[in-house]
Amino acid sequence: MIRILVLHGPNLNLLGVREPQVYGRMGYDELNRSIKERAAALEIEARIIQSNSEGELIDAIHDTLAWADGIIINPGALTHYSYAIRDALSAVRLPCIEVHISNIHAREDWRRQSVVAPVVVGQITGLGGQGYLIAIDALKRLIEESHR
Amino acid sequence: MIRILVLHGPNLNLLGVREPQVYGRMGYDELNRSIKERAAALEIEARIIQSNSEGELIDAIHDTLAWADGIIINPGALTHYSYAIRDALSAVRLPCIEVHISNIHAREDWRRQSVVAPVVVGQITGLGGQGYLIAIDALKRLIEESHR
Amino acid sequence: MIRILVLHGPNLNLLGVREPQVYGRMGYDELNRSIKERAAALEIEARIIQSNSEGELIDAIHDTLAWADGIIINPGALTHYSYAIRDALSAVRLPCIEVHISNIHAREDWRRQSVVAPVVVGQITGLGGQGYLIAIDALKRLIEESHR
Amino acid sequence: MIRILVLHGPNLNLLGVREPQVYGRMGYDELNRSIKERAAALEIEARIIQSNSEGELIDAIHDTLAWADGIIINPGALTHYSYAIRDALSAVRLPCIEVHISNIHAREDWRRQSVVAPVVVGQITGLGGQGYLIAIDALKRLIEESHR
Amino acid sequence: MIRILVLHGPNLNLLGVREPQVYGRMGYDELNRSIKERAAALEIEARIIQSNSEGELIDAIHDTLAWADGIIINPGALTHYSYAIRDALSAVRLPCIEVHISNIHAREDWRRQSVVAPVVVGQITGLGGQGYLIAIDALKRLIEESHR
Amino acid sequence: MIRILVLHGPNLNLLGVREPQVYGRMGYDELNRSIKERAAALEIEARIIQSNSEGELIDAIHDTLAWADGIIINPGALTHYSYAIRDALSAVRLPCIEVHISNIHAREDWRRQSVVAPVVVGQITGLGGQGYLIAIDALKRLIEESHR
Amino acid sequence: MIRILVLHGPNLNLLGVREPQVYGRMGYDELNRSIKERAAALEIEARIIQSNSEGELIDAIHDTLAWADGIIINPGALTHYSYAIRDALSAVRLPCIEVHISNIHAREDWRRQSVVAPVVVGQITGLGGQGYLIAIDALKRLIEESHR
Amino acid sequence: MIRILVLHGPNLNLLGVREPQVYGRMGYDELNRSIKERAAALEIEARIIQSNSEGELIDAIHDTLAWADGIIINPGALTHYSYAIRDALSAVRLPCIEVHISNIHAREDWRRQSVVAPVVVGQITGLGGQGYLIAIDALKRLIEESHR
Amino acid sequence: MIRILVLHGPNLNLLGVREPQVYGRMGYDELNRSIKERAAALEIEARIIQSNSEGELIDAIHDTLAWADGIIINPGALTHYSYAIRDALSAVRLPCIEVHISNIHAREDWRRQSVVAPVVVGQITGLGGQGYLIAIDALKRLIEESHR
Amino acid sequence: MIRILVLHGPNLNLLGVREPQVYGRMGYDELNRSIKERAAALEIEARIIQSNSEGELIDAIHDTLAWADGIIINPGALTHYSYAIRDALSAVRLPCIEVHISNIHAREDWRRQSVVAPVVVGQITGLGGQGYLIAIDALKRLIEESHR
Amino acid sequence: MIRILVLHGPNLNLLGVREPQVYGRMGYDELNRSIKERAAALEIEARIIQSNSEGELIDAIHDTLAWADGIIINPGALTHYSYAIRDALSAVRLPCIEVHISNIHAREDWRRQSVVAPVVVGQITGLGGQGYLIAIDALKRLIEESHR
Amino acid sequence: MIRILVLHGPNLNLLGVREPQVYGRMGYDELNRSIKERAAALEIEARIIQSNSEGELIDAIHDTLAWADGIIINPGALTHYSYAIRDALSAVRLPCIEVHISNIHAREDWRRQSVVAPVVVGQITGLGGQGYLIAIDALKRLIEESHR
Repeated sequence: MIRILVLHGPNLNLLGVREPQVYGRMGYDELNRSIKERAAALEIEARIIQSNSEGELIDAIHDTLAWADGIIINPGALTHYSYAIRDALSAVRLPCIEVHISNIHAREDWRRQSVVAPVVVGQITGLGGQGYLIAIDALKRLIEESHR
Repeated sequence: MIRILVLHGPNLNLLGVREPQVYGRMGYDELNRSIKERAAALEIEARIIQSNSEGELIDAIHDTLAWADGIIINPGALTHYSYAIRDALSAVRLPCIEVHISNIHAREDWRRQSVVAPVVVGQITGLGGQGYLIAIDALKRLIEESHR
Repeated sequence: MIRILVLHGPNLNLLGVREPQVYGRMGYDELNRSIKERAAALEIEARIIQSNSEGELIDAIHDTLAWADGIIINPGALTHYSYAIRDALSAVRLPCIEVHISNIHAREDWRRQSVVAPVVVGQITGLGGQGYLIAIDALKRLIEESHR
Repeated sequence: MIRILVLHGPNLNLLGVREPQVYGRMGYDELNRSIKERAAALEIEARIIQSNSEGELIDAIHDTLAWADGIIINPGALTHYSYAIRDALSAVRLPCIEVHISNIHAREDWRRQSVVAPVVVGQITGLGGQGYLIAIDALKRLIEESHR
Repeated sequence: MIRILVLHGPNLNLLGVREPQVYGRMGYDELNRSIKERAAALEIEARIIQSNSEGELIDAIHDTLAWADGIIINPGALTHYSYAIRDALSAVRLPCIEVHISNIHAREDWRRQSVVAPVVVGQITGLGGQGYLIAIDALKRLIEESHR
Repeated sequence: MIRILVLHGPNLNLLGVREPQVYGRMGYDELNRSIKERAAALEIEARIIQSNSEGELIDAIHDTLAWADGIIINPGALTHYSYAIRDALSAVRLPCIEVHISNIHAREDWRRQSVVAPVVVGQITGLGGQGYLIAIDALKRLIEESHR
Repeated sequence: MIRILVLHGPNLNLLGVREPQVYGRMGYDELNRSIKERAAALEIEARIIQSNSEGELIDAIHDTLAWADGIIINPGALTHYSYAIRDALSAVRLPCIEVHISNIHAREDWRRQSVVAPVVVGQITGLGGQGYLIAIDALKRLIEESHR
Repeated sequence: MIRILVLHGPNLNLLGVREPQVYGRMGYDELNRSIKERAAALEIEARIIQSNSEGELIDAIHDTLAWADGIIINPGALTHYSYAIRDALSAVRLPCIEVHISNIHAREDWRRQSVVAPVVVGQITGLGGQGYLIAIDALKRLIEESHR
Repeated sequence: MIRILVLHGPNLNLLGVREPQVYGRMGYDELNRSIKERAAALEIEARIIQSNSEGELIDAIHDTLAWADGIIINPGALTHYSYAIRDALSAVRLPCIEVHISNIHAREDWRRQSVVAPVVVGQITGLGGQGYLIAIDALKRLIEESHR
Repeated sequence: MIRILVLHGPNLNLLGVREPQVYGRMGYDELNRSIKERAAALEIEARIIQSNSEGELIDAIHDTLAWADGIIINPGALTHYSYAIRDALSAVRLPCIEVHISNIHAREDWRRQSVVAPVVVGQITGLGGQGYLIAIDALKRLIEESHR
Repeated sequence: MIRILVLHGPNLNLLGVREPQVYGRMGYDELNRSIKERAAALEIEARIIQSNSEGELIDAIHDTLAWADGIIINPGALTHYSYAIRDALSAVRLPCIEVHISNIHAREDWRRQSVVAPVVVGQITGLGGQGYLIAIDALKRLIEESHR
Repeated sequence: MIRILVLHGPNLNLLGVREPQVYGRMGYDELNRSIKERAAALEIEARIIQSNSEGELIDAIHDTLAWADGIIINPGALTHYSYAIRDALSAVRLPCIEVHISNIHAREDWRRQSVVAPVVVGQITGLGGQGYLIAIDALKRLIEESHR
C-alpha cells in the first residue's frame, strides 16, 4: 500500500475562516476529509500534519524516511523563504508535489517565488482544495512509476 | 456539452524528439490521444491546436469567444515574454489553466516567471503529460461551478 | 495627398469587447470609422491594418516604403518587448506617432516601458479612441513640415 | 464656459532659448499665445502659470479647487521626482493631461519615468508646442463628457 | 516652558478634502486645534507651520535654532526624496519625531522609504491625526529626559 | 472591557541585557510592568506573550480569535522576513499596531523593511518602551471607534 | 554533400536600405549571392530563408530535422527576447553559429544580451556580411569534425 | 575549564544520509564523537545541541549567558535568512565561529550570503567535519586571548 | 572684467554651525569673505547667492543669462535629485564648476551620485572652503580660454 | 606588408593543459603555429605576445602605435573587468577583433559581459583555435578596406 | 614530502603596519615565521610568495604545476574582482584553501563577495594569522586523502 | 621641504595622443613639466611615476612610507575597479587627492564610480591638466595643516 504525507504549513488551519475571497469557503476539516476520501478511494494511506512551526514541519519531513513513499506539501507563507524546508525535502529524496490553494503567481511579488519549487517534482496552484486531490492522483502515478 | 480549447505553443510539436531528459519520452501524438481520451471520458469536446506563431495562438484564443467554455494552455517559451497572449487571455475572460510539462520553477531563472500566470485560474507544472489530464478534470469542475 | 498607415497590434480587434473598464466601450469598427472620417476631413488617405502577428505588423511597416508618408501605431502588448517592430520603424524612417488607448503609465510596471518609444516622434496615451484622431492631426502637421 | 489651468514647470520660461535642437525654436511667449488662441477658439478660459518652484506649482494646483474644470501640466524636470506635485494632482481630482515638448521616452533613462503619469488621464509627448494645443482639444472633450 | 515646532509639508493643508478614504475625514483646522489643545494641556507651546515649498520648510527648521526644543514633522511627499530637509534636521540637532497620517508602509513602494527617518528619533505612522497627539506626548518626555 | 494581546518576538526577553546603546536600559520585566500599569489605568486587559519561535507567535495570534479585541506586536527580527506572521495577522483581522523599540529606519538596510507593516494599522518606532504605552492609547481608541 | 540552413530574422530583408551607417551598404540580395558563392566554393548546399515572423523562423528550424547538417542564424532583434527560437535550436540539436552584422556589444544595452547564444556553438559579430562567409567556413569544419 | 556550545541547525541531524556528494559520508553521530574527542583533548567542555527549530536555537544561544565561554554554530539553511539568530548572537556577545561543511560560496547564489557572518568572529567553510575541529582550536585561542 | 555667480544650495547658510566634524569649522560668512578676496585678487566680480529653495536657485541661474560669464555651484543636498537645477544649468550654457565641501564620494551611497555633474565642466570635492577658491582659479582660466 | 599583433591574456599559456572539456585539446604552441601559418599564407606578419599581467598587455597595445596595422586580442578573464585594456585599445585606434576560444555567452553570467567589446570592431566566440584564424582573414580585409 | 604554496596578494606585505585595528598587530615576517614553523612541524615544505601584481600571482600559481601538492591563497583585495586568478586556480586543479585575516563578511559590501571562492575547496576568514595555520592542517589532510 | 608623489595610472603616458576630444591636446611630457614647475614654485619636491601595471602602482604607493608627505593620484581606468590600490592608499595613510583629466561623472556609467574615492581626501575632475596643479596647491595646504 502506498503511504503519503500531506503537510500543511502556517495558517492553513484557519482555512475557511481566513480571507475567503482569496482562499475560498471550504473549511480546514472539510479539506482534510476530502483528502482522506480521495486517498482511500485510491488505496493510499494519507497522514495529514499541520503546523505553524518551520521546525515541526522539518521534523515531519525527516520522519517520512521511516514510513512514507511521497509527500504533498503546502508550505504556506514559508514557501517564500524557508530554505530549511527546501533542504529537508531534498535530503529525504521522496517524490514531492507542492500545492497552493490560491494562484500565488497572480498576487504580491514575493508570493510569486517559491524557494521550495526547485526541489519538488511539480507544482499545482490556484485550483483550491481540488489541487490536493489531483496532487494525490499525480503522486500515486509518480510513485508507481518509480517502483517499476 | 462542455467544450474546451487545448493550446500548445512553440516547439511542443517536437515533444518526444526534443530533449527527452527534460520533457520525457511521450510523443506529441501520444499526448494528444490521451488528452482526447480523457476529454471523451468526461464528455468534453476538446479541440487541440498547436502553433509556433504567437499571432496564430492569439487568433485561436480570440476564436474561443465563439465556441468554447474554457482553455488549457501551454504557451511554451512564450510563457516568459508574451504579454500579447496574456492580454488575449484576459480579453476573452474564460476560465483557463496553464500547464507546463517540466518543472519550470527548477530550471533557468527566466523560465521561473510566467507573464501569463496572473490572468489564469491556476498553474500545473512538472507532471509531464499527466498535467494536461488533471487540468481537464480541474477545468471541468471550474466550468460546472461557474454555470451554477 | 498625404497617405498614412494606421497600425493596430494584437488584441485591438477585440476593442469594445475587451475589458471596457480599461479600454472603453467604443468598438473596433466604430474606432476605425472615426479614424477614416477624420482622415477624410483632412484630405488624408488612411489605410488601417490590424494583426495579432508581430511578423505581419513588420511586413506592413516595410510596405510603407512603397506608398506612405507617415505611420500611427498602437503596438498593443508588443509595445513592451518587440524590439523587432522598433527596428522596423527605424529602418523605414517615416514620421511615426505611438498611440495607446489606456494610460499605460498608470498600470502594471511592465506596461510603463515602451521599447518602441525611442524611435517614434511622440506618444499619446490615455485619451481613448480620441488619441488616434489627434495623432492624425499631429502627423499631418509633421509631414507637411518635413515636406517644406 | 470651461476654465482650465495650463501649468508650466521649471525652465519652460526659457523655451526658444534653451537647447533648440531638443525643444524647438518656438519661444515661450509664442507658445502661450497659441495656447490662448486655441482656447479662445474653443470658448475655453485658459490661465497660464509658470514657476521654477515646486511649492508655487503645488499652490497653483490647490487653487484650481476654487475655479477650474481641468489642468494641463508640463512639470518640466519635476516630472521625474516630484511626488508632491503628484499628490497635489490626485488631491484636487480634476481631469489632467500631462504634456512634454520633447519625446521624453527617447532621452536619458531618468527622463523616461514620470511620477506624475499614474494620476493623470493621459500623456502627450514629443509633439512640440502642438502637444499643448491637442491637449486642450482632448481636455475639453473629457470635461464635457464628465459633465454629462 | 517647552516649545516645539509642528511642521506640515506639501498638501497637508488639504486634509479632509484630499482622498478621505486614505487620510480620514478630520479637516486641517480641526487637526491643528487638537494639536494646540494637547500641547496646552501639557504646558507646551506649539507653533504650527505648513508649506508646500521645500525651501520654506527648511527655513522653518533653521529658525528653530533660535527658539524651539523639539520638532514634529510630517514632510508629506517630500518624505521620500527631500535629502535637503533631512540635512536641515540633522544640522539643527533637535529631537524630532516624524509623523504620517496614513500607514505609508502599506501603500506604493516609493512611499515605504523615508529619507528623513535616519535622522529623527522615531516615526509614528497610520494612526491618523492621533499620531500627532501621541508624538507630542513622546517628544515632551524626550525633551525632559535630555534636560536632566 | 477591552482585551488586547501584546506580543514580543525573538530576543525581546533579553531587553536591558542586549545592546543597551541600541535598545536602552529598561529591562524586560520593567517594560511589561509599565505595559500592565498603563493598560490597567485605561481599564484594558493586556495579556503579554514572548517567544523566540515563529510558530508559537503564530499560534498566539490565532488564539486571539477566541478572546481579544486588538494586538500590539513587536516581531523582533522576524519583522523583516516572516511572511507567515504577516499572513496570520491578516487572517485574524483584528486592529494591530506594530512597535519597535529602536528606530529601525536608521539602522541596517534590511531592518528598514517590515513585511508585517502592510497588514497593520500603523507603526511606532524609535520611542523605546514608551512606544508600547502610546500604542495602547492608540489601540484603545481604534477599538472603541470600530465598536461604534 | 553538406547542407546548411542560413536563417535571416526580422528586418534583414531591408539590408542596404536600413541604417547603412550601422549595417553597411551591401544589399540583401548581394549578401545572399556571396553566401551562395562561398557555399558553392566549399561544396555546401546553402538554403537561405528570411522571415519577419518568429513562428516561421521556428518552423524553418524544425524543418532542418529532415534535411540539414547545420544552421547559421542571424535572428535580428529577436536575438534579444525570443526564447522560443532558442528552444527550437536546442530541440533540433544541430551545430549552429550565430551571426550579427553589426557589433551588438557596442550598441544599446538590450542589444548586448543574446538569449540564443547559450545554445549555439559560437557567435560572430561586427564583421558585416563577411561574418556569414567565415561562419560557413567554421560550420563546415564543425560538421566535418562531428562526422568523424 | 573552557566551556563551549556547538550548535547544529536544521537538517544537520541527517548528516551522512543527506546528499553525501555535497556533505560527505561522515554520519552525524560520528561528527559529534570527533567533536567531543577534540574538545576533551584540549580540556574543553563541549555541549552539542541540534534543532530544526529557529526558536529552539535562539533559546540555546540565550542559555549560554549562564554557562558558556564561546559558540560554534552551523545554522544550516537558516544561515541565509535568520536575522533572529543573528540578533541572538549579537545579544549574548560571546566569541562565535560559524562553520559550514560544504563550500557555500561555490553553490547556489542564495547560499553565498550569510546573514549571521557580520556578527561572528570568523567563518570556516568547505572543510567538511574537520571544519568543526579546527574551529574548536581557533575558538580556544580566542577565549584564552580575551581572558588575558 | 570677468563676472561669476557663486551659488550655495540648501543648508550651506549653517556652515560652521552644522556638523563641524563633516563640514569643518569655517563659518558661512568667513567662507564668503575668502571667496570675495580671492575673486578680487584675480580681478573677478563674484556675486554670492544662497537659498534653501530649488526654485530661487533656478531663478538665479536663469538670471546669469543677463550678466555672468561663469558659475560655481554647490547645490547642497539638491545635488542628488534636482534634475530641474541640472536642466537650468544646461539651458544657460555657461562654464560651471561644481564644488562640495566634504568628500561626497566617501559618505552615504545617495551622496555619491550627482545629477548635476553631467552638465558641468568639472567637480571639486572634499577640500573644504578651499575648494571654492581653486574653483575660482580654474573657472577664470576656462572663461579666458573660451574668450580667445 | 600588413603587420598585426596577436595578444593572448592570462592563462592562455596553459591551453591544452587547462580544462580541455571547455577549451579543447589543442595546445598553446600548436595554436600559435597555426596562427603563424595562416598569417604567412596571407602575407601578414603576425607577432604573438602572451602575458598574465594586465600592465604588460597594455604596454604591448601601446607599442603597436609604432609598428602594427591591427590587433587580434583574447584578453582571457580580463575581458570581464579590465577597463584599462579597453582604454588602451581605444587610445591606439587600430582595427581590433576580439576572440574567445569558448562560447563565453553560454557560461557563467560574469563571462557574458565583455568590457572590451564596445571598442573593438567585432567579436568571434566559441570556435576554438579556428576563431583566431578567421579573425586573421577578417582583420586583413578590414585593414585593406581602410587603406583604400 | 608534501609541498605547498602559500600565496599572499596585494598589501599583505604591510601586515602589522596597515590598519592594525582591522588586521591585527602581528607583522608580515612574524606571520611567515609561524607558517614555516607549523609547516615544518607537519613535515610540509611551504614556499611563501607575496606580490602586489596580479600577473605575478598568476605566474606563481602556474608554476605549482611543476612542484606543489596544494595552495593556500589570500588574494587580498584581488579576491573581489580577479577572475584571472580564479581561472588560474581552476586551471592548475590543485586543492586550494582561501584565507582572509579579517572577517570579510562583516565589512563593506564589496568585500563580502569572493570571485575566487567557487573554485577553492574552502575558505577561512576572520581568525587572523591563525587562519593560515589551521589552513595548513586542513590542506595536509586534503592532500593525504586525495593521495589514497 | 614637502615631498609628494604624483602617480599616473594606465594609458596616461599616451596623453595628447589619446582621444584629444576627451583628454585635451596637452601632451604627457608637457603635463609633467607644468607639474614640476608648479611644485618648484611652491618649494615642493614632486616625484612623478607612471605605470600601466596595478602592481607597480601599489609598489610606488607602499614606497611613500619611506619618503613622502602626500600623494596625488590619477589611477586611470583602475579608478573603477582596483580595490587593491584603494587598500594600498588606506594602508599608507598619507593625505591623498584624486585627479581626473576628464569629467568622469559625465561619461559612461562605469566611469562615474571611483572605488578609490572613499579613502582619499578629495577629488578634482574635468579640469584637464590644470586639475593636477590645483591639487598641488590643495595638498600643500593639507600637509601644512596636519603638521601644525
